[in-house]
Amino acid sequence: MSTKTNAGRFFEDFVVGETLVHATPRTVTDGDVALYTALFGGRFAPVSSAPFAESVGLRAAPLDSVLVFHVVFGKTVPDVSLNAIANLGYADGRFGVPVYPGDTIRTTSTVLGTKANRDGTTGVVYVRSRGVNQHDELVLEYTRWAMVRKRDASSVPPSPVVPELPSGVTPSSLHVPFHIAPGTYDTALAGSPFAWEDYTVGERIDHVDGMTIEEAEHMMAARLYQNTARVHFNQHVERDGRFGRRIVYGGHLISLARALSFNGLGNAFAIVGINGGRHVNPSFAGDTIYAWSEVLAHEPLPDRTDLGALRVRTVAVKDRAARDFPDQLESGGYDPSVVLDFDYWVVLPTRRSLR
Amino acid sequence: MSTKTNAGRFFEDFVVGETLVHATPRTVTDGDVALYTALFGGRFAPVSSAPFAESVGLRAAPLDSVLVFHVVFGKTVPDVSLNAIANLGYADGRFGVPVYPGDTIRTTSTVLGTKANRDGTTGVVYVRSRGVNQHDELVLEYTRWAMVRKRDASSVPPSPVVPELPSGVTPSSLHVPFHIAPGTYDTALAGSPFAWEDYTVGERIDHVDGMTIEEAEHMMAARLYQNTARVHFNQHVERDGRFGRRIVYGGHLISLARALSFNGLGNAFAIVGINGGRHVNPSFAGDTIYAWSEVLAHEPLPDRTDLGALRVRTVAVKDRAARDFPDQLESGGYDPSVVLDFDYWVVLPTRRSLR
Amino acid sequence: MSTKTNAGRFFEDFVVGETLVHATPRTVTDGDVALYTALFGGRFAPVSSAPFAESVGLRAAPLDSVLVFHVVFGKTVPDVSLNAIANLGYADGRFGVPVYPGDTIRTTSTVLGTKANRDGTTGVVYVRSRGVNQHDELVLEYTRWAMVRKRDASSVPPSPVVPELPSGVTPSSLHVPFHIAPGTYDTALAGSPFAWEDYTVGERIDHVDGMTIEEAEHMMAARLYQNTARVHFNQHVERDGRFGRRIVYGGHLISLARALSFNGLGNAFAIVGINGGRHVNPSFAGDTIYAWSEVLAHEPLPDRTDLGALRVRTVAVKDRAARDFPDQLESGGYDPSVVLDFDYWVVLPTRRSLR
Repeated sequence: MSTKTNAGRFFEDFVVGETLVHATPRTVTDGDVALYTALFGGRFAPVSSAPFAESVGLRAAPLDSVLVFHVVFGKTVPDVSLNAIANLGYADGRFGVPVYPGDTIRTTSTVLGTKANRDGTTGVVYVRSRGVNQHDELVLEYTRWAMVRKRDASSVPPSPVVPELPSGVTPSSLHVPFHIAPGTYDTALAGSPFAWEDYTVGERIDHVDGMTIEEAEHMMAARLYQNTARVHFNQHVERDGRFGRRIVYGGHLISLARALSFNGLGNAFAIVGINGGRHVNPSFAGDTIYAWSEVLAHEPLPDRTDLGALRVRTVAVKDRAARDFPDQLESGGYDPSVVLDFDYWVVLPTRRSLR
Repeated sequence: MSTKTNAGRFFEDFVVGETLVHATPRTVTDGDVALYTALFGGRFAPVSSAPFAESVGLRAAPLDSVLVFHVVFGKTVPDVSLNAIANLGYADGRFGVPVYPGDTIRTTSTVLGTKANRDGTTGVVYVRSRGVNQHDELVLEYTRWAMVRKRDASSVPPSPVVPELPSGVTPSSLHVPFHIAPGTYDTALAGSPFAWEDYTVGERIDHVDGMTIEEAEHMMAARLYQNTARVHFNQHVERDGRFGRRIVYGGHLISLARALSFNGLGNAFAIVGINGGRHVNPSFAGDTIYAWSEVLAHEPLPDRTDLGALRVRTVAVKDRAARDFPDQLESGGYDPSVVLDFDYWVVLPTRRSLR
Repeated sequence: MSTKTNAGRFFEDFVVGETLVHATPRTVTDGDVALYTALFGGRFAPVSSAPFAESVGLRAAPLDSVLVFHVVFGKTVPDVSLNAIANLGYADGRFGVPVYPGDTIRTTSTVLGTKANRDGTTGVVYVRSRGVNQHDELVLEYTRWAMVRKRDASSVPPSPVVPELPSGVTPSSLHVPFHIAPGTYDTALAGSPFAWEDYTVGERIDHVDGMTIEEAEHMMAARLYQNTARVHFNQHVERDGRFGRRIVYGGHLISLARALSFNGLGNAFAIVGINGGRHVNPSFAGDTIYAWSEVLAHEPLPDRTDLGALRVRTVAVKDRAARDFPDQLESGGYDPSVVLDFDYWVVLPTRRSLR
């Protein structure tokens, strides 16, 4: 019997402090960008148009922030979450240099902590993943934690190590590689008249539209990121699984929610930080996804007058409109329609940047 | 309650003479071309092959004419037809310079006319849309009219303005950016032996093949063009709508019919004008589309011996073969299988151009 | 009635010794590569990463070998197999120079043999197809044979000509355009620690994972290759056909099996020869595909110390795991789950090449 296949790491295999070098480096191209557009329909202008990207100080249209996230994340799956039951959360995410077609992305992950669960069969693993380009420049780093199966229920787990995670990324630590000359940001072409100053803390926005997910779509997306998690692809196994069908990659919901958020946040053209995120419920083909957002914070950027930052929480729900903002319940649980609660920093042009 | 989302223009919002600047500029790439090939399977040689494109006088393989149409059209949706009930027709369309991967397309539309319907709840809006590249060169202009909801049934409409629309584009006004040296057009590589002279007015061609539409396909196509019309994407709403399901973007049928028409019109490698077009019936995922064409006119091009023009009407039908040419009925209606009636100009090499 | 459409060649139309020039040349791009990744999720490092490709002596990331096969094959369909009932087999396949984005592929086929079947309605046609790039350099040549309908059951067939086909390609005749400096092949980035020397003849590998096929996926794939075989696309006809549904292009199974084989053959980064292949059973949307492989031969390459060759047979099965290696039966038939039996040469780095 050959032992040449990768069975994935089990809980026992993660050693705190160890750094994992992930396969497979990925040269991203215009082709990936087109597919991402076809899958989600994004309309943020600097991502869609090279001349518009130049007007915000970039040399070309960069990859969408969330596409970068997926490529960096995808590489970690064979080493981190092949035997995961659930992807529990994200924290402390910072984007670095923009990623352009032609760049090559690699990812490494450092094990920050492990903590066995009381049931004896699983444990939580915390990793900090770091994606870099071909010049070893950081493109994204973030922490995630997942519930991973133990190989052997009787194995004695190491002492728990739980990393301290910040409740958010401070605006001053965000990397903002965009620069806008006064009066040059074209709101007509961008599709939204609203500047950073027009948003207020506590403001809630129903993004109105809904988008139905198809099996071919979420599988093509996950394969595009070389995400190999089995539950997304194998109906023969999943029909007898917990849900009777394939589960949509959680990140697919981030992309859908982000694309829907254009209607209301049209000038929030880049995500620059991830404060936290949770996949509250699973999604399946046939689900129609809606989203709403809440402005959590409204912060200037140090020494910058062209752009400001908004901390936004976007909630994605399924099979119901979001006009009444389905949310976390007072009991601590969530409205059953909620599938994603994602907390992140975006940048928007200030009024003085607008044409 | 936030008012940051775009609710779309209603009938009352259209002012004759006004020009709308549409978001979002779109840099088209090899990725868009590959997706378009994957969605429709086009085989017109100059679009498929860079060396073949050079043999017809282009610097590279251009985007398919219909893909250019979709990108130009897609931009108009958020401003023109978000509250449309029906896309009623097209007229007077002229293609301009070829579009190459790397070009950036923008669209503006001028309101040509408005006319309230007697029911008081809707009206017809006529716009002329103009797509340009990053050098402000025209890539396509055309007129379309749509039935748009009124915001308020009791609002008093302005006096009707109905533009005079030509019944067709005259061959002498067509822009034909292709040039073929005598004896250089390779019919074996092109896949068809027939020159412009081989077609006769009145000739009808059954394009034989049928293609079934899937939900994932028409949604990926519409998103690729950043077409945001809601009826294509939201099964949660549409299951309770008029048809109980999502409606396929009408332009998808143009693309399918055009790709099918290769079998019979293989050397008609570019559409250069649109005389008119109507979406006669809606299409849905699961429909199998066939097409047939009729040659309406056979015209030389001014001062050109390398290429000639054919005016062609292509009719797309669903769930039945087209061998008996289902068509408009004497009563004025259409055979119920017809979904598209599209009247356009194509160019083909003359005999002296053939190798 | 127009006679401008291509009805495809029937058995009587094939003349031994004749060479067919196939339409449509195809310039392949980064877009095709991205779509292929989205459809199959391949992870072989030199295909995924430009810097990794350079580390094996290439100037850029090449197209996956099997994608090249599909593009070369697709061109032959309108001339060879439009009236085929079954694609019976492949033999004697050799890959040539790598194909890079921007290259243009053309195909010609020479008729090697024809042999009428006793039933009088069909015959077997043998062709040798040759794909070249824009510099007329060979990218792939292979022989295939298909069962093709006769136009007229009463026509008298020519004397049978059956070409002698080798049972395999000899390693010394393989073209291996890769070069690895000692100690430079990065197994961590490649995702597999195993060198050529680590595999032994007779070793069998269960590739573990399963992938479910969707209608939109196999149709997009076949159209990407401009493969026009009708049975893949037309549900309206196929619902009344032999299987009641569309049949998946057999080559789709080669791509799926090859992508799944990464888990166990991760450093077998290129197919360089095809010894034989059979589509044992048809596949349909909804099937979940698994694969296993057997090492048939382990051969050094002449005058090469950086790379060695493995002859591998990969068997794809549907709707059952491959852990017990479903295979050909002693009776000569196959286990009913088997859909593909594919015998090919791959190259892998030797131990001295590994970092």
